[in-house]
Amino acid sequence: MEPDHAALTSGNDFWHTTPGAGLPSITLTDGPHGVRLQASEDDVVTGRPATCFPPAVAGASTWDPDLLRRMGEALGDECRAMDVAVLLGPGINLKRTPLGGRNFEYFSEDPLLTGVLATEWVRGLQSRGVGASLKHFAVNSQETDRMRISADVDERTLREMYLRAFQRVVTQARPWTVMCSYNRINGTYASQNRWLLTDVLRDEWGFEGVVVSDWGAVADRVAAVAAGLDLTMPGPDDTGDRALIDAVADGRLDPVALETAAGRVRALVERAGERPPGEYDADAHHALAREIAGRAIVLLKNDGDVLPLSGGETVAVIGEFARTPRYQGGGSSHITPTRLDDALTAISESAPVRFAPGYDNPDEAAALAADSDVALVFAGSAHETEGADRDTLDLPDAHRELIERVAAANPRTVVVLSNGAVVRTSPWEARVPAIVEGWLLGQAGGAAIADVLFGRVNPSGRLTETIPLELADHPSYLDFPGEHGHVRYGEGIHVGYRGFDAREQAVAYPFGFGLSYTTFEYGAARATVTDDGIEVRVPVTNTGARDGREVVQVYVSVPGSAVRRAPRELKAFASVPIAAGETAGVVLRIAREDLAYWDTRFGRWVVEGGEYHCAVGASSRDLRTTAVVEVPGDDVRAPLTAESSVAEWLNDPRGAALLGQVFAAAAGSSGAIAHLVADPSTISLVGSLPLGRMAAFPGSPLTVEAVDKLVAEAGG
Amino acid sequence: MEPDHAALTSGNDFWHTTPGAGLPSITLTDGPHGVRLQASEDDVVTGRPATCFPPAVAGASTWDPDLLRRMGEALGDECRAMDVAVLLGPGINLKRTPLGGRNFEYFSEDPLLTGVLATEWVRGLQSRGVGASLKHFAVNSQETDRMRISADVDERTLREMYLRAFQRVVTQARPWTVMCSYNRINGTYASQNRWLLTDVLRDEWGFEGVVVSDWGAVADRVAAVAAGLDLTMPGPDDTGDRALIDAVADGRLDPVALETAAGRVRALVERAGERPPGEYDADAHHALAREIAGRAIVLLKNDGDVLPLSGGETVAVIGEFARTPRYQGGGSSHITPTRLDDALTAISESAPVRFAPGYDNPDEAAALAADSDVALVFAGSAHETEGADRDTLDLPDAHRELIERVAAANPRTVVVLSNGAVVRTSPWEARVPAIVEGWLLGQAGGAAIADVLFGRVNPSGRLTETIPLELADHPSYLDFPGEHGHVRYGEGIHVGYRGFDAREQAVAYPFGFGLSYTTFEYGAARATVTDDGIEVRVPVTNTGARDGREVVQVYVSVPGSAVRRAPRELKAFASVPIAAGETAGVVLRIAREDLAYWDTRFGRWVVEGGEYHCAVGASSRDLRTTAVVEVPGDDVRAPLTAESSVAEWLNDPRGAALLGQVFAAAAGSSGAIAHLVADPSTISLVGSLPLGRMAAFPGSPLTVEAVDKLVAEAGG
Repeated sequence: MEPDHAALTSGNDFWHTTPGAGLPSITLTDGPHGVRLQASEDDVVTGRPATCFPPAVAGASTWDPDLLRRMGEALGDECRAMDVAVLLGPGINLKRTPLGGRNFEYFSEDPLLTGVLATEWVRGLQSRGVGASLKHFAVNSQETDRMRISADVDERTLREMYLRAFQRVVTQARPWTVMCSYNRINGTYASQNRWLLTDVLRDEWGFEGVVVSDWGAVADRVAAVAAGLDLTMPGPDDTGDRALIDAVADGRLDPVALETAAGRVRALVERAGERPPGEYDADAHHALAREIAGRAIVLLKNDGDVLPLSGGETVAVIGEFARTPRYQGGGSSHITPTRLDDALTAISESAPVRFAPGYDNPDEAAALAADSDVALVFAGSAHETEGADRDTLDLPDAHRELIERVAAANPRTVVVLSNGAVVRTSPWEARVPAIVEGWLLGQAGGAAIADVLFGRVNPSGRLTETIPLELADHPSYLDFPGEHGHVRYGEGIHVGYRGFDAREQAVAYPFGFGLSYTTFEYGAARATVTDDGIEVRVPVTNTGARDGREVVQVYVSVPGSAVRRAPRELKAFASVPIAAGETAGVVLRIAREDLAYWDTRFGRWVVEGGEYHCAVGASSRDLRTTAVVEVPGDDVRAPLTAESSVAEWLNDPRGAALLGQVFAAAAGSSGAIAHLVADPSTISLVGSLPLGRMAAFPGSPLTVEAVDKLVAEAGG
Repeated sequence: MEPDHAALTSGNDFWHTTPGAGLPSITLTDGPHGVRLQASEDDVVTGRPATCFPPAVAGASTWDPDLLRRMGEALGDECRAMDVAVLLGPGINLKRTPLGGRNFEYFSEDPLLTGVLATEWVRGLQSRGVGASLKHFAVNSQETDRMRISADVDERTLREMYLRAFQRVVTQARPWTVMCSYNRINGTYASQNRWLLTDVLRDEWGFEGVVVSDWGAVADRVAAVAAGLDLTMPGPDDTGDRALIDAVADGRLDPVALETAAGRVRALVERAGERPPGEYDADAHHALAREIAGRAIVLLKNDGDVLPLSGGETVAVIGEFARTPRYQGGGSSHITPTRLDDALTAISESAPVRFAPGYDNPDEAAALAADSDVALVFAGSAHETEGADRDTLDLPDAHRELIERVAAANPRTVVVLSNGAVVRTSPWEARVPAIVEGWLLGQAGGAAIADVLFGRVNPSGRLTETIPLELADHPSYLDFPGEHGHVRYGEGIHVGYRGFDAREQAVAYPFGFGLSYTTFEYGAARATVTDDGIEVRVPVTNTGARDGREVVQVYVSVPGSAVRRAPRELKAFASVPIAAGETAGVVLRIAREDLAYWDTRFGRWVVEGGEYHCAVGASSRDLRTTAVVEVPGDDVRAPLTAESSVAEWLNDPRGAALLGQVFAAAAGSSGAIAHLVADPSTISLVGSLPLGRMAAFPGSPLTVEAVDKLVAEAGG
């Protein structure tokens, strides 16, 4: 056991691996929507200038995997220019609650959308020879007590919701590293969770890279290495290194575990060494950031076609956010941008504009609005940051009052929102004809907003999370943020739209929603079953006068399912450019594995046989056409045992035949059970009885020995 | 080890203990709302005639502990007359879902109401020298897969909701026996659950009686005895008896466990032997059944004072249930009544009546209604039984159509419901001016309905469960009835009205609701803290012209609570007779222990110090007056450890002083953590850090040794 094995498994400082024995040190640094390379030695907060791309909340709203791949490529180029080997992203935790402080760094409340987009982001980044760090593994969906909180989640929910995007990205994009999260899962720290880091991640999913800790996530180095954690960050951690060596020496830790971890870190460093240096074109990256931002904006409301602006109107631009943009969140992802567009300047380039900062002085703003053709109110959430969850879904009072005042002064008022996670739009939304959801759009967001307002970009962004009417409506509401170190994931699989749909609740804006300046019509969908899953074809026509993009979405329902399922689940989508008047033949493919549910009886994914309804449309609640296909099921069968109920025996052809003989023989007997079995009114009482239990009833037609024989004959 | 020890711990047959060595056999038989003593040897279903009192769904709707005690006394008298030693009841499982097939045998969705009422029932029964069997212990809130299903429930929910009524009855009424349920709890069968049967029931609650199995609930006799189960029913179970002896012989079972179980059964039999024989007055019991039934009826709606009837109207009685009453549910509680009142006959005695059976012939009924002054439509749920849950909240289609047709023919239509659990009242409720909720009322229910309709009884029954607008609104909806052997109690503590209130949902009729033929006004409530809890005093005035009863309810909120709580919880109630024009000074006492929540950190009940709001009113959503008191908290404090967060250290006076010294010393240093601590914008990142974890950060002001020292100095 070489001592440097231990040192290799912890960092050399905040951002570097430990060098030695001919092995260089490599840099890992924060992302994910930019490269945050520490600028000065004493300040871990401020990074060197880098392109601040749109945070994940915006990037995901494009619903466009190609755009995410291009963003990954650009980030890879910047990493090469700054000699960064591993960029700490993407963050793909599910948005369990709209109050999640880090939601702006995450993609969606839906695991398929998250997984598809993140896969392309990782492919793009790694195509440049730079490693991704898929994070935060796993179930790190809140900031409150994040270093300790135990996410208490049942296994089906874990598998289908909180682990599913990780599974997709790991198996499809093969990230170089996976970052374990701070929190505990069902009581065990992610950093010390062998089930998570080894059984699932490596043995089931085939992950061969490095598991790195979130910074400071390791409470016990020995337990972490035993669980499958390879690299503890930051470092140095001499105490921990010594603890590992001691644990190997006294037999508490298998030396192979430590050698394996060190070997993986070594392989990562060697792989990173193959990366050639590079440089990047800051102007081109700014242009890409603007393109993504424009595609991310979601047009929530546009009554009377107030938008797009013609450029001929006089425009009142109101709200400090127009001049001083809110374009990213706080915490480790905070980027020092290469430049920064503001909306006020960008709008001024297209129309005559007057400005009022607004929040402190709504009367001035209202007067300005009254004296203009159109008023644009820039409003948004106050602050979103790593380390703290939000405590409200509402805009700040001053912003809401500003909207009300301005709308009262000018009926042609457009609200432009800047926020890292959804905000409540009631009741003010009824007062304004148009709402533009601008998220946090990165350094080029100001220009992108102008692009959409003036119609240079026809909006095609879609909601990746539901906007509820009230916070209390949300599926997570009763169990957030937990207490005393535990948060119950009480809603189970019914995360986000799955929960709203299951309870048939009204929402402000549904998952998948977003308007365009043109209109689309759907023809009849057709679906066919292939060896790989389901292929859905649907013609979509741009029936308006402008070119545009439609995000075509397929939601699958299994009405005859033997297990509880959400009423519909997103299973495929495509962002399709369609010229005015043209029809696109859209083809969407659903992988067979995405039809599976997690069966807790067998501990495996199971595709049920039966009718699958593929509903196609423009949002989760705007479904235009449905195709039904018969999907063959996986060959799984629960064995008949003494714990199987009488009803289960009778429902199985072989079991029914065997048990029927026993009952027939008993029909003439006088025992109590014979009486119950013979009486149709009491079969509901008997049907639920485990067969083995029946033997204990007086007068039972079955003995313990007879049950054993039946089980043997039924073939187990 | 005597062999007959084993035999004593299983039954001699379906209903008797095993005699021997001078010990007689005693009879245990089904209840709980009557004595179901098997009438003939071959038929375990049909009982000898006995008074069929109102099932628990009705009895509980009286909200009157005194009535329940009198019912218990009467049942005890009937047991003595039939030589029954133990009556298998009361059933006190929480009504988690309105679809529960056995809800008619249970009391409420609230554990306090359940516990208070059941305590008096047990006291009444046992005052006659007859033992109760508190059932089904525990978390047996559904029939689907009831023999195997695992109720997966977090511990706080278990303690505060599903075990709380059991705890109250066990500690206050000392039932002779407790019956374990069929189901599993968090994976372990109740019958084999040592935590449940020994740690909680005996060690914490001090139970000294016999734990008897539900009939057929024991899968493994050895495991059951080891867990604390004393008596397996039914019997004989020679195989199981032998298994116990073998297990003792080969050391797998502690002989003391078996001796203890046998000793408890022996003590039960001996105690039962002290019971003198008795007899009962069937007419008096029928009268009592009628009194309870009249008090159980809940007047849900009475627009325009259609009720009470004067006796002068011509009355159309419609619906077969008026002639052939639905007065109890199916399964083990089914009683062969001593006589049976029907509403049609009873109503005929007070007014001129014509009858139409209705359900198959709504047109005939509508014509009859059109030709009468008032129409009474008897409708109800189709069937409720042990062994099967309901699959709908709706009345049968034919009943709903009948109501619509009759209401269209006569605007003075009264709906009289017969159902074992709540039914959906929308949309038909809008068409009728009056609704009488008649539950399942036992053998005298027909007469009791007439008593209420004609005003001889002024209704005072109240809902013990919420009537939702839609099934999908219900807190349990997403997780019922489970699958693959598990049902997640996803709503946690938010059972019934707690969940509706927490989400601010509209309901059809709230918990605690019920109208009267008179009106009550509330004065200002006053509350004082006593050594034992809180005493609430409120003057209530009958402001109408009829004598009546008000069920005064106290709901407590703790707005400043550090733990998640339901917005309000029932903590005291009283059914108070108040003559017309009179004012009653109502005194309600809340026991201090009922203010506690279960603290999972300490594994104990904790009363928080702070402001308690005691809202007093006529239902959970009709609160008239609130008194606020300051309650002193229990002396509990979480120790400061290395796992305590920096924020927790800083929030503790002693911890803050100690840590402050360390930070002050580090303020001038250049380490990264010192930088973070010094920067107010990043304190949210640092505050959540467990103190011990801080030592691992480069540049940390803390070493591992320093953390150990701090923990020692902070006093753990």
